[in-house]
Amino acid sequence: MKSDVEIAQDAVMRPVADVARELQITDDELELYGKYKAKVSLNLWDRVKSRPNGKLILVSAINPTPAGEGKTTTTVGLGDALRRLDKKAAIALREPSLGPCFGIKGGAAGGGYAQVVPMEDINLHFTGDFHAITSAHNLLAAVIDNHIQQGNELGIDPRRVTWRRVVDLNDRALRSVICGLGGKANGTPRETGFDITVASEMMAILCLANDLDDMKHRIGRIIIGHTYDNRPVTVRELNVTGALTLLFKDAIKPNLVQTLENTPAFVHGGPFANIAHGCNSVMATKFALKLADYVVTEAGFGADLGAEKFLNIKCRFAGIKPDAVVIVATVRALKMHGGVAKAELSEENSAALERGLANLAKHIENMHKFGLPTVVAINAFPTDTEQELAFVVKACQALGAEVALSEVWAKGGEGGIALAQKVLQAAGKPGQFRFLYPETAPIKAKIESIARDIYGAAAVNYTPAAEKIIAELSGGQLAQTPVCMAKTQYSLSDDAAKLGRPADFTITVREIRVAAGAGFLVAITGDVMTMPGLPKRPAAERMDIDNRGKISGLF
Amino acid sequence: MKSDVEIAQDAVMRPVADVARELQITDDELELYGKYKAKVSLNLWDRVKSRPNGKLILVSAINPTPAGEGKTTTTVGLGDALRRLDKKAAIALREPSLGPCFGIKGGAAGGGYAQVVPMEDINLHFTGDFHAITSAHNLLAAVIDNHIQQGNELGIDPRRVTWRRVVDLNDRALRSVICGLGGKANGTPRETGFDITVASEMMAILCLANDLDDMKHRIGRIIIGHTYDNRPVTVRELNVTGALTLLFKDAIKPNLVQTLENTPAFVHGGPFANIAHGCNSVMATKFALKLADYVVTEAGFGADLGAEKFLNIKCRFAGIKPDAVVIVATVRALKMHGGVAKAELSEENSAALERGLANLAKHIENMHKFGLPTVVAINAFPTDTEQELAFVVKACQALGAEVALSEVWAKGGEGGIALAQKVLQAAGKPGQFRFLYPETAPIKAKIESIARDIYGAAAVNYTPAAEKIIAELSGGQLAQTPVCMAKTQYSLSDDAAKLGRPADFTITVREIRVAAGAGFLVAITGDVMTMPGLPKRPAAERMDIDNRGKISGLF
Repeated sequence: MKSDVEIAQDAVMRPVADVARELQITDDELELYGKYKAKVSLNLWDRVKSRPNGKLILVSAINPTPAGEGKTTTTVGLGDALRRLDKKAAIALREPSLGPCFGIKGGAAGGGYAQVVPMEDINLHFTGDFHAITSAHNLLAAVIDNHIQQGNELGIDPRRVTWRRVVDLNDRALRSVICGLGGKANGTPRETGFDITVASEMMAILCLANDLDDMKHRIGRIIIGHTYDNRPVTVRELNVTGALTLLFKDAIKPNLVQTLENTPAFVHGGPFANIAHGCNSVMATKFALKLADYVVTEAGFGADLGAEKFLNIKCRFAGIKPDAVVIVATVRALKMHGGVAKAELSEENSAALERGLANLAKHIENMHKFGLPTVVAINAFPTDTEQELAFVVKACQALGAEVALSEVWAKGGEGGIALAQKVLQAAGKPGQFRFLYPETAPIKAKIESIARDIYGAAAVNYTPAAEKIIAELSGGQLAQTPVCMAKTQYSLSDDAAKLGRPADFTITVREIRVAAGAGFLVAITGDVMTMPGLPKRPAAERMDIDNRGKISGLF
Repeated sequence: MKSDVEIAQDAVMRPVADVARELQITDDELELYGKYKAKVSLNLWDRVKSRPNGKLILVSAINPTPAGEGKTTTTVGLGDALRRLDKKAAIALREPSLGPCFGIKGGAAGGGYAQVVPMEDINLHFTGDFHAITSAHNLLAAVIDNHIQQGNELGIDPRRVTWRRVVDLNDRALRSVICGLGGKANGTPRETGFDITVASEMMAILCLANDLDDMKHRIGRIIIGHTYDNRPVTVRELNVTGALTLLFKDAIKPNLVQTLENTPAFVHGGPFANIAHGCNSVMATKFALKLADYVVTEAGFGADLGAEKFLNIKCRFAGIKPDAVVIVATVRALKMHGGVAKAELSEENSAALERGLANLAKHIENMHKFGLPTVVAINAFPTDTEQELAFVVKACQALGAEVALSEVWAKGGEGGIALAQKVLQAAGKPGQFRFLYPETAPIKAKIESIARDIYGAAAVNYTPAAEKIIAELSGGQLAQTPVCMAKTQYSLSDDAAKLGRPADFTITVREIRVAAGAGFLVAITGDVMTMPGLPKRPAAERMDIDNRGKISGLF
């Protein structure tokens, strides 16, 4: 059995200019980064913006388990399958972060025979988008400390600067630092820290902006902290909105690559799925919708977080809507949701499967609440039995969802034909999409609508700290923004141990953070880790490159 | 009068593939980054490596003054002039650092009508080389702290980790920090700090490596600190040599752009000129020498630092040698060396000019010590008088150096024809190049040969700290490496206030740092600033970008 990186290295790639031509993108509208990566020029938008959108398919999943679901793999394979059915298809994915690559994960761009390529490039620097985010984020941090150092005209309270710094690495020693040490010439000592780049509000902004002006507008309104007299300080007041936007001159352009089967793939942006919305850039999705008849995209974590935010946040800001949703599940993961330990997942266990199906059922119900036709993709594993598969199919049908077996990991697009056919049917139905809540609803009403309707919670509690911020914000403009929930991805509840479909639980909102630039409030319901650490034996120890540039050990 | 960025934006660029074709680089040997930037594939080396080298012209300068000398501008203009004389010419330059761009400087890639383009791209991210350095440098830092956190098998003393972190920004608040705060899960608290990326030893390594294997070898031998029992710890022991080298898979490939007059320009790497050697990458220079008949390159600061290191460090490691040296001077700067204040430089003052010429004279003498034909380029200013220019010409001729007026800033390559003709003459002479010292000489002998022969010092003092390190290193392998001097660039002495040609001074070596990866010892003779700060009104405040991506205020 070949490893992912070996399969990727054996890929027969087309020059990306040919891939672009399939979408009628001209050479002049393409900025090549080597032969197999490109950025799409912003001029292209003017040419295509008045076209009708293609159909948008959102791939989401049940709550993730250590058994793995294969959401990105399914997204890639579904795109390939649609193209095999002679549809003009494209996919839209997030860019992987550099840090986790050297930690536990290795590379990440799909798996098996459903990957995007060139895999090494996509995982290592790619076209530099994340480096642009790191630079802009940290330039802002430097400007803040410099403002304080140079007389502090705005009266920024060094104890209340909330803008931290970022690196695109797993580096736990930077979570909490004191900067500005070393005497008068070296700044004001203060407590701060570093997050991983994907957690930067700049990342969320890049992924929500409709164009450079929109990006500049959002950057300008970022709140970096408070003054001694308790006034929020924005980037605009620091006069560096233009300089920060400048750093995104190329990063804002969607990247084009291809799948192993040469299907066009837009891979652009990758915000955290907890403190941010967890989907690829609005611009990549919008470009893809103007260029292809079918666009398959995904959102981070399970449908309770990823799909909910995709729908309530991204679709709202972008003015788009999906035509169908795919929920990915595996028999193994469903059995885990039914209480089976990881070591015993290979054994048939219909009782556990039935219990675990309640998790899937809830996500299907939720998608129906948004008015969206839903197809379940059962990502096949060799250990699945006929009986188990039949059982899942029957259960899904009873819930009003179509269902198909997906074998894209082992077979590429060919293994996704059955799924693609169901998706085409579902996306052909007239759309009934509706948001879960109006933006104008009170903050608590928005949180409670997500908690009750999507998670199935009985009630929502608020810590005094959260109550205080909600009271401060209420009535103001920031209260009129969507809410971005930060909750464990492993459970529908805020307790990672509650698998399946928990009932009678309450959600506790511990903290409210303001992402004024991105344009949402973050409701935090548990510990949020914004800077991962490295394991005892990091994946980095297995990696190498030879004198010809051939890479090994990336996965 | 147009600004540099306006001139650059009006440039009529050729597609970089056409520029490459002028050097017989095929499309297959080129990796495009948009239409006007490319990386040169490593495969090209195999095809051209057995060719004879072209002629190498090193552009250096008198000790810099606030009046400005125009070394990069002269390098660019000389390349253009050689091409106008139908020579197959290329230039090789350093990449500018992102940080200073937002500080005082704005962009930097030559000036006036002698620039490399696309100027905005070269100044902003370019092809991502510096971001790769930042990533690799900081991954190593994360791995060190992780090693300590995960049981510290090697027994690394957290108090003696010398490997800091880097950002490609001016951020004084990061000069001195305490990391690892926040309790057991977040590492071991220790004092450390951040340098600007160009000060990273990874940068020096990238610029000295002959290929990926050489790079890997140098990275592996980097010393990151010491154990509790006083043993140096190398990267090799941390098992991440391969992973760190991997991050340079593209950064190691030289970048190709063009001048305003479409002369091919290799712009690659940019190490600090004080704690490192301050010239573009060995690979860029070597590729250029195989592809062009004349290669014009430059080195940081004045000839006492830049040229000395270019010759004793870079040429030694790369196995190359220049055929002629150009020393750039301006009448204004010479008057400053003669004691005139900046505000009075526009007035004719032959007495001051004569005193200041002593600085130029010393640099000419020094180049002759290396056995190199030397041409003085007088970078013309509108305020220069006929009499002043005639005086400088006569003085140079008396010293055995050719001299030519350079008007490339105002006129591009046309303004460099006279200089180019002198350079062609000089480079046509048979070479007599010799190193100043053998690598095998004792550490102090190497330092003293630079201090006496090049700086003109009467003696060298060592602090007890420096004496201690020299004693520890002597007899070991590290004692057999070149010495990289860190000295003020403003004076031939180690006192920035001593302009002209100081005499009877001593040089004090305060500290010796080991750059075991790069392969040299750094002898520090004064305060070395490895992290600049931002000014009260950073250049960033003037910058903007419009919705079409058009940039303003970069310079």
